[in-house]
Amino acid sequence: MQHYFLNRTLTPGDQIGLPAEISHHLDRVLRSQVGDEVELVSSQQVVFKAQIDRIADRTVFVSIIEKLAVNVELPVSVTVVSGLSKRNKPELIVQKATEMGASKLIFVPMAWSVVKWAQKSDKKIKRLQEVALSAAEQSHRNVVPTVQYLDNLAALFNDPFDLKLVAYEESAKAGEAANLVKLVAGSQPGASIVAVFGPEGGISPTEIDQLSQNGFIPMGLGPRIMRTETAPLYFLAACSVLTELAGKLNKPANHDKI
Amino acid sequence: MQHYFLNRTLTPGDQIGLPAEISHHLDRVLRSQVGDEVELVSSQQVVFKAQIDRIADRTVFVSIIEKLAVNVELPVSVTVVSGLSKRNKPELIVQKATEMGASKLIFVPMAWSVVKWAQKSDKKIKRLQEVALSAAEQSHRNVVPTVQYLDNLAALFNDPFDLKLVAYEESAKAGEAANLVKLVAGSQPGASIVAVFGPEGGISPTEIDQLSQNGFIPMGLGPRIMRTETAPLYFLAACSVLTELAGKLNKPANHDKI
Repeated sequence: MQHYFLNRTLTPGDQIGLPAEISHHLDRVLRSQVGDEVELVSSQQVVFKAQIDRIADRTVFVSIIEKLAVNVELPVSVTVVSGLSKRNKPELIVQKATEMGASKLIFVPMAWSVVKWAQKSDKKIKRLQEVALSAAEQSHRNVVPTVQYLDNLAALFNDPFDLKLVAYEESAKAGEAANLVKLVAGSQPGASIVAVFGPEGGISPTEIDQLSQNGFIPMGLGPRIMRTETAPLYFLAACSVLTELAGKLNKPANHDKI
Repeated sequence: MQHYFLNRTLTPGDQIGLPAEISHHLDRVLRSQVGDEVELVSSQQVVFKAQIDRIADRTVFVSIIEKLAVNVELPVSVTVVSGLSKRNKPELIVQKATEMGASKLIFVPMAWSVVKWAQKSDKKIKRLQEVALSAAEQSHRNVVPTVQYLDNLAALFNDPFDLKLVAYEESAKAGEAANLVKLVAGSQPGASIVAVFGPEGGISPTEIDQLSQNGFIPMGLGPRIMRTETAPLYFLAACSVLTELAGKLNKPANHDKI
């Protein structure tokens, strides 16, 4: 079933016209018919089942049928911070990180980044936010992750997070393997986690010092060297395994969460 | 340091000329100099440090300096089976699965695949094997994963594996969350694991029945719907977290493995 995000509250029984872009997608791209069902997510992050009543003047009108007890969000809120990387890597990070449950994506220039966004950052972020929306629809998220640009790493240091991590290859080389598992598995439901990932060139020693002094704990991601766009995906999968799968061994099904 | 795979045994003290492609890469692409060091992996999957002695007639000659006690392979051998998918998705799967430690990648037509390879399969596999080599060099693997095409799922059923899994969205919807963690974390070092992932259209109920009857256990990968190219990466990260990180809490560093 198609899944769209609306910028409003919803109540069963409501009859509404869908916004132009969603109407266009349902009518012109998918050739939907009266009677077809869709999932709509309210601004309260609640998913509703709706049914198409009529299509007129390029607008699709639906009736809200019922609230669905579906929550696919990670039990912890994960912010991924990526050093600026080349080509389509930021798009890949945003798309895949959204599928894997990230709450927020931050892009930041780092010492060893080989690209600069500067003037282009607004345009880049706008495009990446569209990628996040599309991936959130596709993976049936309750929330569209926000995408943000920061001028420098230091701008991160004022935000409060329950757990601050930085992926560091040298940690893995030194045999450090426990921090990720220990700290993420030990997080409380609702905890906010931020993890910093370097650009293609890696994280500079100065940046590691700066991050450490501001409470970021270095973590290894296993012994293999991963590309800049692969490491955040490994980390998000780890967060899911440790908080959703391993933590759920004796708990009821996810659909009972709401 | 650059990392290349050789099709021969190596011994400290050996002086050898490197194959044409590697010589070209070092000399013409990277502009390497006499004295530069490289890592060479022998056909025994052992990594050696080598130093460039001279460059003559487009061949780079090196001396093998010493054996490096480095093993970055997963403690379990993971075979990823993917239904044929569109565009560059197979390349993305091979590249990222190699970075994440897969031993083998198998591509197979499935009921709901929207593409067919048929006559093109040899050419496709040749290209994907090159992607695996390049990713294995980049991620400093000890082994280049093999890439294979099978005509149908049934061709899998004769191979012996210690653990057979199939990713199934309906398992996740039904709240099944324990199989992946329980079965992978419970695997012995050296165990062979195979996991099947459907194409864009998903796995058909007939295929699930066929797989189940042949010992494949359905597993959920968390509550979010992931694209066909994302699910194997989630699974491989899970294998790493469960066998390398969580399993290593009280063990010596990975570099001591050999």
